[in-house]
Amino acid sequence: MAPQNAPRIVDEAMRTTTGTAPGELFQQGIQAVEELMYAVVETDVSILTEASRHILKAGGKRVRPRMVLLSYIALGGTDIDYVVPAAAAIELVHTASVVHDDINDHGVLRRGRPSINSIWGRTFALLTGDFLFTKVYELMAPYKDLNIDLAEATIALVEGETLQASAVKEGKFSRQIYHDIISRKTAALFRSGAVIGAKLAGASAKEIDALADYGFKIGLAFQIIDDILDLVADAETLGKTAGIDLEQGKGFAVHATAAPTANANGAGSNIVDSGDPMLVIKQKLLQGDAIPEARQQAKVLASQAVDSIDLLPASFEKDELVKLAHLVVDRDH
Amino acid sequence: MAPQNAPRIVDEAMRTTTGTAPGELFQQGIQAVEELMYAVVETDVSILTEASRHILKAGGKRVRPRMVLLSYIALGGTDIDYVVPAAAAIELVHTASVVHDDINDHGVLRRGRPSINSIWGRTFALLTGDFLFTKVYELMAPYKDLNIDLAEATIALVEGETLQASAVKEGKFSRQIYHDIISRKTAALFRSGAVIGAKLAGASAKEIDALADYGFKIGLAFQIIDDILDLVADAETLGKTAGIDLEQGKGFAVHATAAPTANANGAGSNIVDSGDPMLVIKQKLLQGDAIPEARQQAKVLASQAVDSIDLLPASFEKDELVKLAHLVVDRDH
Repeated sequence: MAPQNAPRIVDEAMRTTTGTAPGELFQQGIQAVEELMYAVVETDVSILTEASRHILKAGGKRVRPRMVLLSYIALGGTDIDYVVPAAAAIELVHTASVVHDDINDHGVLRRGRPSINSIWGRTFALLTGDFLFTKVYELMAPYKDLNIDLAEATIALVEGETLQASAVKEGKFSRQIYHDIISRKTAALFRSGAVIGAKLAGASAKEIDALADYGFKIGLAFQIIDDILDLVADAETLGKTAGIDLEQGKGFAVHATAAPTANANGAGSNIVDSGDPMLVIKQKLLQGDAIPEARQQAKVLASQAVDSIDLLPASFEKDELVKLAHLVVDRDH
Repeated sequence: MAPQNAPRIVDEAMRTTTGTAPGELFQQGIQAVEELMYAVVETDVSILTEASRHILKAGGKRVRPRMVLLSYIALGGTDIDYVVPAAAAIELVHTASVVHDDINDHGVLRRGRPSINSIWGRTFALLTGDFLFTKVYELMAPYKDLNIDLAEATIALVEGETLQASAVKEGKFSRQIYHDIISRKTAALFRSGAVIGAKLAGASAKEIDALADYGFKIGLAFQIIDDILDLVADAETLGKTAGIDLEQGKGFAVHATAAPTANANGAGSNIVDSGDPMLVIKQKLLQGDAIPEARQQAKVLASQAVDSIDLLPASFEKDELVKLAHLVVDRDH
């Protein structure tokens, strides 16, 4: 394991003299993360390897490991092998959570492919999710002090998923609850990715705070856009079972329709009671201002995220972090 | 966090002079583990706290944390606060796995109480299991180098559960497969408990190996007896949905009836095809030699486990480890 006291200030000239062109280290990292994720799920219990690789092969945007790598390099980290296992671990936390999420949602498509539960059944999907969580733990073991950062983010993720399931069940949604849910289930993990990248680079407390703020706001923006896409996209474009969130009364859709005081007799029940509630609400939302408003909110968050990393020295990776912020809000899948 | 270089040799006289009578430290530890498990599942997402405490309140034998504490003290550890979080974490790995196991098994009773999935439903049971896993991670974060031990045991546990589910599904069981399953799903965690206790006490490599062997064999014996109890006990005595393992064609029951080459057309199919297959097989096993043979095997393993810790200096805790070995094979629940 490489030492943590890597040089803190990026020196492009130095990096060129050591044979690393701008962006090259990052690309090496992304490739290595992909290879490591494939390698680490290897086991003689073949169904776990197959199911894990099935979901990994489907791709995904890899936004979280990208954020780890970019934060690390932007803050002066040069030992890419040192940061790759952490970046892979964070993507596997996300991957494990979607595998379990698909069980609860009865999702049949994920990233354009059949979900694990639709191929291997619920039992093996549950165990594959557990397996991926244990692999996170294995990958992170060497990092010592950073484990608490990822542990806390993973706890928040499970809490956020639980708050969401509770809100759906009780039909209680409000802007406040929606914000709490997405803060925990999505933004906390993004935040920890940026923080872990920064800490591994030996960043200062101020720099770590800046990256934490960046990651958290990107995470919020990402989830808001995800909820909008779930609403407006069809299954073919989105690559996962679209409308699930709406059908189950969770996510932005309900947030946008429910009054702050909505309860079991409020918006939630409209969704399940009418003949084709999805269609009705979808049309209502698509015609109203809710979606443009939410999209605007996501853009503001992304812009604030960019502002918070203003203190970073200019670099290829800083530019990429800025681009990532725009990509998160401008994407169509 | 206390230093790892605690004195290695137990000195009863010294411990008495510091105010700790034999057994007192262990009892303090057991109590502290219980309190810590209750405390660590506290969260404002109340359903997670309630469901977690529901399963914790049901008790259980706490064999795994007992093993951690006894190993630690028997090898000279004196700082009980140092070892308690690890002992609690290991019990929570087990607890998380039974919560998820009850989802897959449709178990309605666990430790004499309704299972989490039967009260809160599958979604919240799945999330509660995930939550408990994340709490393991949180509790273990400060231990640094020991995380890989528990990570590997947790991976083995999930692999063992998966092998079992695969064997059930394919109707393929043999002594070899049964041994592989129980080695991973049960014995690996027992082993890691004993090893972690020993390592935290600053034990020598030889002592760690001895405890590893002890833990692994106790784990095998424990699972064999568990499978026998599942077969012979009724739900009232056992405190969990009895016969589940048999009904689903897993565990010792099928191991005992299936020929080494049994496949989908073999013993497994007998279980699901006949009118009351459980009764038929149960009677067959109870009348045959399979159960006495398996019980004898468990006794041999427990005896070997005791032999492997022969090198430990005499102490209250060594005696307790010996007693634990007997308890594991002589228990009726």
